[in-house]
Amino acid sequence: MPERAGDGPEELDAVRGDVRAVVDRFYAAFESADLDAMREIWLDDDRATCVHPGALPVRGATAVGRSWALMMANTPYLQFILTDVDIAVAGDTASVTCTENVLTAEEGGPLDSFGAGQTVSTNVLVRTEHGWRLWVRHSSPVVSAQVLSAGDDDDE
Amino acid sequence: MPERAGDGPEELDAVRGDVRAVVDRFYAAFESADLDAMREIWLDDDRATCVHPGALPVRGATAVGRSWALMMANTPYLQFILTDVDIAVAGDTASVTCTENVLTAEEGGPLDSFGAGQTVSTNVLVRTEHGWRLWVRHSSPVVSAQVLSAGDDDDE
Repeated sequence: MPERAGDGPEELDAVRGDVRAVVDRFYAAFESADLDAMREIWLDDDRATCVHPGALPVRGATAVGRSWALMMANTPYLQFILTDVDIAVAGDTASVTCTENVLTAEEGGPLDSFGAGQTVSTNVLVRTEHGWRLWVRHSSPVVSAQVLSAGDDDDE
Repeated sequence: MPERAGDGPEELDAVRGDVRAVVDRFYAAFESADLDAMREIWLDDDRATCVHPGALPVRGATAVGRSWALMMANTPYLQFILTDVDIAVAGDTASVTCTENVLTAEEGGPLDSFGAGQTVSTNVLVRTEHGWRLWVRHSSPVVSAQVLSAGDDDDE
């Protein structure tokens, strides 16, 4: 399927901007431990799916919200520096992959509850009547940074 | 967005069946180290994205294909037993999350090149004029099986 049927580069840029705004709201909600804001970002039905680093999938908006409450209760102050952000669009769905570099205020302590300072995440958003919502998130610790990514397409 | 605008349960079941068939072909290609079959399953443009366990994202069909060639060259005989398979559909996109339990023929050896016997994967497929194709895959080792997944919705 085309990125946007009948749409030109300007429309695609607008979609990317809308999607990026929701992703930015997601990280702001995570950083500020704002559970209400976090819940608003997610698709509000049983398709919502979240794989936290090292964990099994959590499915359904209710369970996903609970998992974020647990995450926020067990995570120290943190700040995300996103790098290598890529937004790919297919119709009314967008996939955002990025590397999350986590900074924490706990000097000398573990960087986060997963013991990793760098995670890679896939965030899949879907366009709804209420705007773009986070449908699927999969996050995982980076343990072998360059082995399989050294072959990225040269033309990108 | 609805699962399928204007479609009933029978149509949704048909979509799930089509999607599952592609996912099954993916695992068969991986198990048999069939690189040609693997390449055919993927979306053939620069939106194709794959996060192998512990690694950074690989983007673009060419680079994704190369990463699979590398994976297949460095992985012993293996067999996947999928559990907890869930298919969520939104329009012309589907997300398949599952736990991959990896069996290997190397008795006494490491289960795979990542040293983990269980991975959780998100496979996002998109409907194209050539059928459903794998658009985004994110796979990660399971290190804390129950902590964040114990709160799954009761009604599922």
